[in-house]
Amino acid sequence: MKSDIDRLMRERQLDAIIVTGGEEFNTARYYLSNGARITHGSIFKIIDKPALLVCSRMEVEEAAKSGLEVMTDAELGFYDRYKEAEGDSIKATLLHWSDVLSRLGLNAGRIGLYGAWQVNKTIALYEALRADLAQYEFVAEAEGTLIEEAMLTKDADEIARIRSVAQRANAVMEIAWDFIASLRPAGETLLDESGAPVTIGDIKDLARRELMARGLEDTDMIFAQGRDAGFPHSRGEADMPLRMGQTIVFDLFPRELGGGYHHDMTRTWCIGYAPPEIRGVYDKVMEAFDISIEAFGLNKPTHLMQEAVLDHFEGAGHPTTRSNPSTMEGYVHSLGHGVGIDIHERPSLSHLRRDDICQIGNILTIEPGLYYPERGFGVRVEDLFVVDEKGELVSLTPFRKDLVIPLRDDVGTAQ
Amino acid sequence: MKSDIDRLMRERQLDAIIVTGGEEFNTARYYLSNGARITHGSIFKIIDKPALLVCSRMEVEEAAKSGLEVMTDAELGFYDRYKEAEGDSIKATLLHWSDVLSRLGLNAGRIGLYGAWQVNKTIALYEALRADLAQYEFVAEAEGTLIEEAMLTKDADEIARIRSVAQRANAVMEIAWDFIASLRPAGETLLDESGAPVTIGDIKDLARRELMARGLEDTDMIFAQGRDAGFPHSRGEADMPLRMGQTIVFDLFPRELGGGYHHDMTRTWCIGYAPPEIRGVYDKVMEAFDISIEAFGLNKPTHLMQEAVLDHFEGAGHPTTRSNPSTMEGYVHSLGHGVGIDIHERPSLSHLRRDDICQIGNILTIEPGLYYPERGFGVRVEDLFVVDEKGELVSLTPFRKDLVIPLRDDVGTAQ
Repeated sequence: MKSDIDRLMRERQLDAIIVTGGEEFNTARYYLSNGARITHGSIFKIIDKPALLVCSRMEVEEAAKSGLEVMTDAELGFYDRYKEAEGDSIKATLLHWSDVLSRLGLNAGRIGLYGAWQVNKTIALYEALRADLAQYEFVAEAEGTLIEEAMLTKDADEIARIRSVAQRANAVMEIAWDFIASLRPAGETLLDESGAPVTIGDIKDLARRELMARGLEDTDMIFAQGRDAGFPHSRGEADMPLRMGQTIVFDLFPRELGGGYHHDMTRTWCIGYAPPEIRGVYDKVMEAFDISIEAFGLNKPTHLMQEAVLDHFEGAGHPTTRSNPSTMEGYVHSLGHGVGIDIHERPSLSHLRRDDICQIGNILTIEPGLYYPERGFGVRVEDLFVVDEKGELVSLTPFRKDLVIPLRDDVGTAQ
Repeated sequence: MKSDIDRLMRERQLDAIIVTGGEEFNTARYYLSNGARITHGSIFKIIDKPALLVCSRMEVEEAAKSGLEVMTDAELGFYDRYKEAEGDSIKATLLHWSDVLSRLGLNAGRIGLYGAWQVNKTIALYEALRADLAQYEFVAEAEGTLIEEAMLTKDADEIARIRSVAQRANAVMEIAWDFIASLRPAGETLLDESGAPVTIGDIKDLARRELMARGLEDTDMIFAQGRDAGFPHSRGEADMPLRMGQTIVFDLFPRELGGGYHHDMTRTWCIGYAPPEIRGVYDKVMEAFDISIEAFGLNKPTHLMQEAVLDHFEGAGHPTTRSNPSTMEGYVHSLGHGVGIDIHERPSLSHLRRDDICQIGNILTIEPGLYYPERGFGVRVEDLFVVDEKGELVSLTPFRKDLVIPLRDDVGTAQ
C-alpha cells in the first residue's frame, strides 16, 4: 500500500522517483496524488521525504487536493527554461527537472521513472535525460514495479471505496435483472411496455444511467449474447434484440465517476429458460468457481488457484490455454486479476505468471469461464474478493448467480 | 488526415511504424485502428502497405471492426515466445515483434514507435529493442509527430462526427441554461421546485444525464463559480450552491460514449444579474473573441491570432503570460487548440509555439478569457471551429453567448 513506498524505494536502491506523463489516464500519478485531477504535472519524491507535486499554475487549486506539497511550474522557473530551450519541450523539461531535483537537494543518484505518456515522447525524453543529466541514473522497471507492488495491497480507505463501488454496482446488476424479468416474450424476442423489442443497447443504456445516478461511470461494459458471448472480450452489439434461451455474458466493471476505483463482476444469464447443453457448461463453471475459492490460502501462490481450475476443466474434457495455448474454445483466460484504480492490476491468477502470492489487502477477481463461439455460447461468472485483515477471502459481490432469469409473465401463467 | 500517413512516413524516412501500448486511452492506436475497442494489441504498418492489427485472441471480434487486417498473437506464435522468454514479457515482446516484422517482409530499416504506455515499460522495451533488434533503427519523435501531423486535419467522416457531437453538446448547454432560468431565487441562492438550494453538483448531474441520453460522455466538465472561476482549470465544488450575480465558467467538453471525438465549448454566466465590473471584463473578452476571428487567415500562422488577443488585453491593462509568464491574473493561457480524439490536439494557438498554420480540415477552439481569482471571478468564452473546404472559419457552437441568465420569476414579477 501507499505507506510502503519508502520501503519499496529502499529495496530498489532508489534515491528518488519521478512520476510523470500527459493527459491520458495515469494510474501511477492518480495513485500517488490521491486522485488529484490535473492534466499536466509530475510528482518528485526523494526517499523518506514527502512528495512534491509540480503542476501548471492553472491547476494549482485542483493539485492542492492531493494533500501533497504543491509548486507551480511557473514558480519553479519553467517558462524561463522553455524560452532558454527555444521551445524544445524535451530540453525545457530536462532543465526544469534538473532545477527541481537540485531544489530538493538531490544532485546525483538513482531515480525511478513512472507514469504514463506517449511512447515516442517517453523515449525522446529518456534519451535526453541519459545524455544530459548524467549525474543521475534513470531506472525503468518493466515488471513488478514499485507502483504495482504498492498497489498490490489496498489500505483501509481504498478498500472502503471499493466496497462502496461494489454495493452500487451490485444494485445496478439487480436493476438490469429486474427490468429483463419484467419484459413480455414474443416468440424468441422480448418486448417492453410499448411493444418494442428490447435490445442490448437498451440494457446498456439502462445500466449506464443507473450507474451514473450512483456516482459511477461505465468503462465499456460487456453485454454479449449468443455467439458473441463465446468471445470473452466481445462487447455485444447494441442493436441486437434480446433473445430467449441464449447465454448473455454481462461483465460490469464501473469505476468512480471521473476515474477512480473499480468494481468488477460478471453474471451469465439465459432469459426464460436454459438449454441443457448450456446448463451443463454453467454447472461446470460454478464448480470451478467453488474449487478456486477452496484453493485459496493466505501466503499461497495465486497460480495454484488457476491450476486447480485448469485441472478441473481439462479433467472434464475442455480445452484450456495450458493444454493448447492457441485454443479459441474452452477455458481461454486466466482465473482473475487484482482490481483498483486500474481494472487489471496484480495479483495475477495465471499459470503463466507464478510470482504472486495471496496477501492481506489484495482485491482480486475470480472469474472462471467456458467459451464455445462456434456452438453459439459462452459462460463466465465473476465476483470481486478482498483478502481481509483476518486473511480470509471475502466476496464483495453478493448478487445472485442464477443462470435463468424467469419472466414474470411465465410465472403468472404458471400460477 | 489518415490518408496522409504514407506521405508522412516517407517524409520521415520511416520504413515502418509500430503503434503499441496498454489499456490506457491510446489516441494513436484509436486513430489508426478506427476506434476498435481493444485493450491489448499493436499496429504494424509497412510503408505503402495496409496496416496489420495484432491483438489477443480474446479480442479478435472487436479488432475486426477496425477494418484493418487482423491477426491474433496466438496465430503469430506469441505464447511460444512467452514460454521461450520464461515469462519475461519484454523479451517475449522483442521475439514477437521480430516474428511479425519478418513475416511482413521487413528485415531491416527505420521504425517509428508510437502509442501510449507506462513510462517505465516503454523505456525498458526501448532499451531491449536497441540492444537485441539492432537490425532495425527505432525512431521516437518528441514533437510534430507523424500521428499529430496526420490528426492536424480531419477528414469528412471525422468532421461529421465532431459536428454531431457539437449539436448534442449545444443542446445540453441549452438544457442547463433553461433549468437555471427556471429556478426560484431566495436571497442570493436558488431553489428548485422542492424548495432545496440547487448546487453545482446538481447542474453537473443534469448535464451528465443529458449528455448520456445523447450518446456522449462527460470528461470532467468545469462548472466553477466565483473565485473558483478565476482558476481556468478548477472543476468547481459539487456541494457549492449556485449564487446570484457570480461568474460561472461552464466548460463542457464531452466525447462520444466510450471514447472518441470531442466537442469543446465554454460559456460564462451570471445568474439574475451581472455586477458592472464583471460586465466590463466580459465585454473585453467578447472583443477578444471577435478580434481573434478577424486575425484568422487560411495558411497564416496560428500564433498571430493569439498575439492579436495579447495586444488587445495588454492594451487594456490586463496582465498576460507574455507580459509576465508567471502571472496568475489576467489572460493566463493560450487562445485555443485543436480538438479531436484528444481534447488538446494541434494546432496550438499560442505565442510560445509558432510553427502551426491554419489549414483546411483543422478543428480548433477559440477561447479567450480573463481571470481574477482574488477579486472572485473569471470569464472565458469558447467556441469550436472548423476550417471548412472553402478555407473559412465556421463555428460549430451556435449556442447563445449571453452573460446573464434572466430568471423567469424575475420576468414574471416585472411584467
